Amino acid sequence: MTIDEARAAFPVFERFAYLNAGTNGPLAGPTVAAMVERTQADLEQGRGGAEYFSSVVEQRERVRAKLAATVGVPGANLSLTTSTTNGCNIVLGGLGLGPDDEVLTTDGEHFELLGALGASSVKVRVAAVRELPPAQSLDVLLAEVTPKTRLLALSDICWVSGNRFPIDELKQATGLPLLADGAQSAGAVAVDASGIDYYAFSCQKWLCGPDGTGGLAVREPESLSVSAPSYLSQDGYEPTGAFSPRAGAKRFDSGWTPPPALAGLDAALDVAPEGRFERAAEMAARCRQLVAQKAEVVTAPGQGTLVTFRFDGDTAELVGQLYERGVVVRDLPGLGLLRVSCGWWTTDEDLDRLVAALP
Amino acid sequence: MTIDEARAAFPVFERFAYLNAGTNGPLAGPTVAAMVERTQADLEQGRGGAEYFSSVVEQRERVRAKLAATVGVPGANLSLTTSTTNGCNIVLGGLGLGPDDEVLTTDGEHFELLGALGASSVKVRVAAVRELPPAQSLDVLLAEVTPKTRLLALSDICWVSGNRFPIDELKQATGLPLLADGAQSAGAVAVDASGIDYYAFSCQKWLCGPDGTGGLAVREPESLSVSAPSYLSQDGYEPTGAFSPRAGAKRFDSGWTPPPALAGLDAALDVAPEGRFERAAEMAARCRQLVAQKAEVVTAPGQGTLVTFRFDGDTAELVGQLYERGVVVRDLPGLGLLRVSCGWWTTDEDLDRLVAALP
Repeated sequence: MTIDEARAAFPVFERFAYLNAGTNGPLAGPTVAAMVERTQADLEQGRGGAEYFSSVVEQRERVRAKLAATVGVPGANLSLTTSTTNGCNIVLGGLGLGPDDEVLTTDGEHFELLGALGASSVKVRVAAVRELPPAQSLDVLLAEVTPKTRLLALSDICWVSGNRFPIDELKQATGLPLLADGAQSAGAVAVDASGIDYYAFSCQKWLCGPDGTGGLAVREPESLSVSAPSYLSQDGYEPTGAFSPRAGAKRFDSGWTPPPALAGLDAALDVAPEGRFERAAEMAARCRQLVAQKAEVVTAPGQGTLVTFRFDGDTAELVGQLYERGVVVRDLPGLGLLRVSCGWWTTDEDLDRLVAALP
Repeated sequence: MTIDEARAAFPVFERFAYLNAGTNGPLAGPTVAAMVERTQADLEQGRGGAEYFSSVVEQRERVRAKLAATVGVPGANLSLTTSTTNGCNIVLGGLGLGPDDEVLTTDGEHFELLGALGASSVKVRVAAVRELPPAQSLDVLLAEVTPKTRLLALSDICWVSGNRFPIDELKQATGLPLLADGAQSAGAVAVDASGIDYYAFSCQKWLCGPDGTGGLAVREPESLSVSAPSYLSQDGYEPTGAFSPRAGAKRFDSGWTPPPALAGLDAALDVAPEGRFERAAEMAARCRQLVAQKAEVVTAPGQGTLVTFRFDGDTAELVGQLYERGVVVRDLPGLGLLRVSCGWWTTDEDLDRLVAALP
C-alpha cells in the first residue's frame, strides 16, 4: 500500500488539514466499516453463542500480535489495555512502591503518567528537561537518580515540546526499570520496545484506532503483580479470589475490549503504508521549517512528529480560528504553546494551509 | 413507552429467544443507530474541535445522571467505569486494606469481584450461601464476621444460583462498609443503592448498553482514595503527579468513555418502558414454573431475573443444541448448571420455545 493509496481511505482529509493525531488520529473508512459491521451484527444476531465468543477471542489474539509487532515485542509480552493511562496505572499498581522509594520523571509528562505516580505513595523526583535541547537532557536526568530510585518513568516523546527524551540512554546508564509513556511515539515513529521494561501506549492517536484502545508491552510479565485483574487475567481461581495468572502479558488485559472497537483496531492496523515513518519525519521537518517563518518553534530538529511553537496571544482563540479555516491543531493551555501533529498522511497542502492561517 | 413498543426496537427477538442478558443484553435499534451515527461523524469530521469535546462532555454528564437515577443515587455519587470488574478494582484499590484486615464474601461470586479481593493482600472469608434458601443465608454470613472485618463484598443477586444475598440486612446488622456487585441487579430489578457504600455494575447486561460501559455508585466519594486516576479524575495537579481530585464520584471515572459507546448508552437508557421490573419478575416466575416441569430449579422463588437449573449431561453441548434451536442461554461450567436470563422483553413464546427445546 502506498502513502497516497492509504491516505485516500480517510474522508476527514477532504475537509480538514487534520493535524491533531497527538490527541485523536483520523479514522479510515475500513476501520469504521469494521466497527459498523460488528455493531450491526450484534444488533441482529445478539452478543451470544459459541461462535460469537470464539471469533472475538480469535480477533483479540490477532490484534495482540499486530500491536506487538508495531512496538517490536513478541505477542506474549503485549497486553490489551484501554489507554496509556490504563497502562501506566497497571505498572504503578503492580510495582507496589512505597514512601521510601523514588521515581524519576520529567517536567514534560502528561497526567496519564503523572496520575499513576501521584496515586502511589512513592517519592517523585522531577527533572526539568522539557524544553532542553535533547543532547543536554541526559545529564540533567542522571543528576536526579539516587540510590533510592526504583523506576524511571518518562515519555519517549514529550507531548508538550515534541522533543525526545533519552530513554534508552538513561536505561543503559542506570540499569533501572523503565516505564516509557509511548503515547506520542507508537505509530508515529519506528518503536523497538524490546529493551524497555514497560511501554504504555494508546491506539486512537497515531495508530488511527477506535477510542478506548491501548497497549502495554511488558518485558518480564512474571515479575509484575496483577493489581487490577479482569476475568481474562487468570486461568484458575480459588473461592477467596486467589488466582493463577495467565502466561505472559495477557494477565494484564484490562477486560473485554468492546468487539466493535476491536474489529476497528484490527482494520486500522492494516492501514500502514510502506515508508510511513520516513514520510512522517519528512513532513514534521517541513512543518518545522514553515512554522519557524512565523513563530518561535520549541521542538528541536529531528525529533518525533509533533511541532510545538509559541504564541503570545490567546492560544485557545487561535485554535478556534484555525479550526474555522479547516486546520485542526491544539494548544497547551497555560503554556502559551500550540502543537501541530504531522503524520505520514500529512501533505504539503495541509502545511501550507496551516501556515497561511497563522497570524 | 409500553413493553410491546419497547420490545419492537430489538431485532434480535425476531430470530432468537434471547435469554442471556446476564452475560450480554440485547441491543435496541436506537442504541445502535446512535453508535453508528457518532462513528460516521467521527469518520467524516474527525475527533477534534471544541464542539466535539464539549458535546461529548455534555453527553457524559447526561449519561451519568441517567445511570445515577437507575440505581437511585445522586449524579454526584456516580462514576463512569468500563465494567463491574473495573468498579470492584477501583474500590479495593482505593481502600488499601492489608493482611491484618478481613473481607467477607460468599461462595457465589464472580471473578469480577473476587479478582479485586485476590489482588489485594487482605484476608478473605468465604460464607457458603450460594445455594441456600435466602432466608437462611444471613446467619451463615454473620457467623463469618469478626472484629477484623473491614468490608462486606458480595453480590446483590448471585450470578450462579440467581438467589438474592441479604446485602441490606447484612449492612444493617454489622454497620460495616459494603461493596455490592450489582452485575445481575442493575436494570434487572429496581435498585436503591443510596444506602450502599459501593455499588458496582455493568451496562451491557440488563441495561442493554454497548460493551465496555459500567457504573460505580459511591456513597462518600471523599472517603475513598483514587488508586487509578485518569485525566478526568482531577482538576489540578503538580509536576510530581500529586493532584486535587474532582468533586464527587467523577474522580473515579476510569477514562474517556468512547464517544460511540457513550452515545449508544445514552440512547439505550431511554428504552425503559413503564412496569419493566414488574414484567421481568413475572416472566422469571413463569420461567421458573415451566422449567421446574423438566428439571431441578436451583433459584428460589421471588428472586431476581435469573433462573438456574441442574442438568446431568454435558451442559456446554446442551447450550449449543439450544442455540441451534434459536434459544440463547448459558451454562455454568463445572457446576452442572444452566442459567436462563429473563427480562421485561421476555415473552411467553420465548419461554415455551426454551422448554420445548429442553430434553
